[in-house]
Amino acid sequence: MSLIAAVRTGASTDVLTSLRAVCDSQGLRELSARLLDLTDLVKWDMREVESALSTLPAGPTAVHKSALHLLGQGGKRLRPMCVALAAHLGTGFGPKARDLGVAVELVHCATLLHDDVVDLGDARRGAPAARTVYGNAASIFAGDWLLVEALRRVGSTGVDGVLVRLLDIIEEMIFAESIQLENRGRIDLPVARYFQVVEGKTAALFRWAMFAGGRAGGLPERVCDDLETYGRHLGVAFQLIDDVLDYAGDEAVTGKALFADLREGKMTYPLIVALEREPAFADVLEEVVALAPGQSPTAAQRRELVRVLHQTDALAAGRRLAVEQASLATAALAALDDSRARTALLTVAQATVHRDA
Amino acid sequence: MSLIAAVRTGASTDVLTSLRAVCDSQGLRELSARLLDLTDLVKWDMREVESALSTLPAGPTAVHKSALHLLGQGGKRLRPMCVALAAHLGTGFGPKARDLGVAVELVHCATLLHDDVVDLGDARRGAPAARTVYGNAASIFAGDWLLVEALRRVGSTGVDGVLVRLLDIIEEMIFAESIQLENRGRIDLPVARYFQVVEGKTAALFRWAMFAGGRAGGLPERVCDDLETYGRHLGVAFQLIDDVLDYAGDEAVTGKALFADLREGKMTYPLIVALEREPAFADVLEEVVALAPGQSPTAAQRRELVRVLHQTDALAAGRRLAVEQASLATAALAALDDSRARTALLTVAQATVHRDA
Repeated sequence: MSLIAAVRTGASTDVLTSLRAVCDSQGLRELSARLLDLTDLVKWDMREVESALSTLPAGPTAVHKSALHLLGQGGKRLRPMCVALAAHLGTGFGPKARDLGVAVELVHCATLLHDDVVDLGDARRGAPAARTVYGNAASIFAGDWLLVEALRRVGSTGVDGVLVRLLDIIEEMIFAESIQLENRGRIDLPVARYFQVVEGKTAALFRWAMFAGGRAGGLPERVCDDLETYGRHLGVAFQLIDDVLDYAGDEAVTGKALFADLREGKMTYPLIVALEREPAFADVLEEVVALAPGQSPTAAQRRELVRVLHQTDALAAGRRLAVEQASLATAALAALDDSRARTALLTVAQATVHRDA
Repeated sequence: MSLIAAVRTGASTDVLTSLRAVCDSQGLRELSARLLDLTDLVKWDMREVESALSTLPAGPTAVHKSALHLLGQGGKRLRPMCVALAAHLGTGFGPKARDLGVAVELVHCATLLHDDVVDLGDARRGAPAARTVYGNAASIFAGDWLLVEALRRVGSTGVDGVLVRLLDIIEEMIFAESIQLENRGRIDLPVARYFQVVEGKTAALFRWAMFAGGRAGGLPERVCDDLETYGRHLGVAFQLIDDVLDYAGDEAVTGKALFADLREGKMTYPLIVALEREPAFADVLEEVVALAPGQSPTAAQRRELVRVLHQTDALAAGRRLAVEQASLATAALAALDDSRARTALLTVAQATVHRDA
């Protein structure tokens, strides 16, 4: 999909539409209705974010093309949506919140570009990864570029404290990636280490999105702290569902190949739980993590992985923990007055655990 | 060399010592004496920079180790020296100038870490490149980390305008790298394109070093503009000599394998001049750029490269252009009052074209 096409279809409201379809199919009528109101609340904000993303200079080099390739795939834009909703809790969504929303998506995309080079990832958002089209070198510089573009935008908003906090957050993300890299291929990853990685690589940027949106909306520090707590738990819930979908999702819907985590040598929560409950699971895990890059698990290995994950109730355990984290996100907003934006944030937390992509 | 050892020996004053030896061997007595005064002026500043560089948190992961491996190799620290000298033109070298000096070296190291992954470079500063010791993945994240560390330090100085300007400069560097990447393996690189790359990938950061040092020293904008012009020409002169040393240097002194540029598919000024003057040079150039990564030119190819570069006077042309650029750097400081720091900057410009490493 071209960048223009992505802007036209409004990638993030598409995500809300597909989430509504999932809720409808599960008989979750009330949640579906609330998603409709959420869509209505952020529709124009998210179009502004898409429109601003599309003004990134489209230079002639493979570096530019790599970055625009990824941005043009759309994506959920959940992080900018967090910025927008947090801003709505205060004075509302204006140009500063828009720029912070753009920046958080650019940082996210920068990390995806580098991650795909590090993990030799081939597919992203249902399309070939930028590195497979334009090469690893272009993806490395493209990631650097988007990071710098993001920081420039954050700096130019002049919103107090957000730039320094973002630099701290990016450092947390890099350290989490470092730990993940260090433990690549180790099937005996302790569960505490898994959560340390998740807090850094996923939850940290959600925390910043909520903090930055709150600051742009002029909210006091105490409220911004609560918003960060919300962002943290939402991020963990989001990652847990991501990890479950790697074994239980539909490739056509998630846009990612199944079993990607394990093929990249990454132990995730469902795998850790399954191994704990069924030590013999180690055999097939070791076989799959030992596969050469680009090699896929056999049909028998796939069946065995899915069989043990179901038999040990590990996927359900992952979903249950995500639900708990979503509840903690919700609880973090307890002190806030009731408002349309607050309800929308509760809806986001609740709906995140129902997503199938 | 461990980081501590590098700090102890004071890498950058070592560079001045070896430059003095070169000047002495060429009978450049006056320049040698001025280098001694320059050493005296910045000795303690540069120790402070080294000491601050050594306080970078030494985490346990390969990402940390990659970054510290490169930082521990020492390097010329010419960019921090520019910051220090520019600051001395004003109120002098204090904690802010120190932090800006540390930051410029961190940005430089960040780009080296990513460049070595992009170029599959094996050696750097006379040691194996970090990526060959700790892997490409760790080097990518290590580059990201040093970049973020640099920006944090710049932001925390609170010196007006330096952070935004650094983000602009880093973007220029990335675009220059993009153009270089785009032209990799093309022996018909126009000379204008070569200078576009040099301005971005090398001169830009020297510009910032001078600007930042000037700002830290409280100098007015007009003076900082002159300092930037100095930095720009110094950077171009520095790169031209680097390019000459790739064919005329001593591997044991430069710490880099000879012919590295061409093996990485990069046309540099001496090659462009030689090809223009001797079109048949295209044959051996095409042979060498077509070598697989890791493959070295044959002895016959090396001899032919060096023969044509000398016969066409291309290496001397590179040195002459570097001397011209150094003169332009010197001219940029014409409006400044005479001072010890100004003399030192003139010395840096003049000595840069005599360096052999």
